[in-house]
Amino acid sequence: MNLLLFERHELIDHHLLRVRGETARHLIEIVHVAQGDTLRVGEIGGRIGSAIVEAIDGETVAVHVGVLNEESQQPWVDLVLALPRPQILKRVLQTAATMGVRRLMLIRSERVERSYFSSPLLAQGKIAYYLRLGLEQGMSTIFPKVTVHHRFRPFVEQELDLYINREQGLRLISHPTADVALSVLELQHKLNSQTQVVLAVGPEGGWREHEIEAFMKKDFIPFNCGPRILRVDSAVCSLLGQLDLLRSMH
Amino acid sequence: MNLLLFERHELIDHHLLRVRGETARHLIEIVHVAQGDTLRVGEIGGRIGSAIVEAIDGETVAVHVGVLNEESQQPWVDLVLALPRPQILKRVLQTAATMGVRRLMLIRSERVERSYFSSPLLAQGKIAYYLRLGLEQGMSTIFPKVTVHHRFRPFVEQELDLYINREQGLRLISHPTADVALSVLELQHKLNSQTQVVLAVGPEGGWREHEIEAFMKKDFIPFNCGPRILRVDSAVCSLLGQLDLLRSMH
Repeated sequence: MNLLLFERHELIDHHLLRVRGETARHLIEIVHVAQGDTLRVGEIGGRIGSAIVEAIDGETVAVHVGVLNEESQQPWVDLVLALPRPQILKRVLQTAATMGVRRLMLIRSERVERSYFSSPLLAQGKIAYYLRLGLEQGMSTIFPKVTVHHRFRPFVEQELDLYINREQGLRLISHPTADVALSVLELQHKLNSQTQVVLAVGPEGGWREHEIEAFMKKDFIPFNCGPRILRVDSAVCSLLGQLDLLRSMH
Repeated sequence: MNLLLFERHELIDHHLLRVRGETARHLIEIVHVAQGDTLRVGEIGGRIGSAIVEAIDGETVAVHVGVLNEESQQPWVDLVLALPRPQILKRVLQTAATMGVRRLMLIRSERVERSYFSSPLLAQGKIAYYLRLGLEQGMSTIFPKVTVHHRFRPFVEQELDLYINREQGLRLISHPTADVALSVLELQHKLNSQTQVVLAVGPEGGWREHEIEAFMKKDFIPFNCGPRILRVDSAVCSLLGQLDLLRSMH
């Protein structure tokens, strides 16, 4: 944990935060906090600052929160993801929050098993738990907005444009048999730090051709990720890293 | 699994392979193979080709291996990694094998807990198990060479140059407080697909300053990964993705 997150209503007298439960245990047993230590803290959805550990009492850590005067990292990319199996989804949720996903849309695709949509992991509380771990790692206070979409066509043909302005930014979809690589696309479209990117990543086994075509009708450009096939969680991590790098080059 | 790996001595009459145990279960229960299906197969350390499923008998899958006439992906990067905790190491081993690590050197650093070096995961068989999962995912037949180094200074000052020719390629070390980003380094050094890269990634909490200095004396160039702090397994995945992208741009 690199950033201790809290909600505004948890603050007592504007400065005192009593950390309990799993987070307190993590601070005591893993971070080994001691009285007087300084921690980085952030208000969920708000700013970041420093806090001082005032007391450690059994299973509670009391910290004094100072002025929060730093802006959080802003999320910069929207991710459309064929819903992966739960074990992989846990990692993707963390990675997405850590690496700056603004909106995560988990969707149906032919190669997604229907049973994944009834996973207990999709309960809102569970999703928030893994996102929070990711934010605490990547030092951001802004939760990605996560939505689940049970039907492919209504999502791609209608809902997507409601969520994300079609005029804005660059829409990309990874597809092993696409002709161009990300490095070529970059040359053509000149990503920069202001570019809004929407990235679509398929299921294990890839998108079906008719799914790719539906995305292309909505201005998504297919690109290939090279000859090595990555597991979905690695693909998301590697692609977000690559896009972030390309944005920083101009 | 995208590639079924086997050892030459497992082939009966040059063509028959009997797959048993966990791999057979995976083929039956996850891949749902049926008689007549075609699989991609590769001889460990050798070439890749196709095979046909001849029979599924209880817990054994018999496949007929055709001519192996395709070269495997070649590994292209050496990774020096402060030994992470076992759960993270499992993922790094898979990612490293999938994404093309040639040599993985797991080393001591001040912020590495000593107990990690006595993890059962470091037994040769366990390491090979996770590497193999990674190769089967990434479709390569070439195992990364993994070595474990219990002492920091002897490794950096002497052993490293014995493993990897110092004259060759580009040596990079990730360091949150470094002045330059990878995108800037790239402009200065013009990575290309022939460049041999050695990448050093620190422990949670980062390298100590004197460790960075020891690496710099061996021509490692520090670079920062931006303001978001990634967990070690994500950092490895993202950085390998970024370096691979940069190599493909020239």
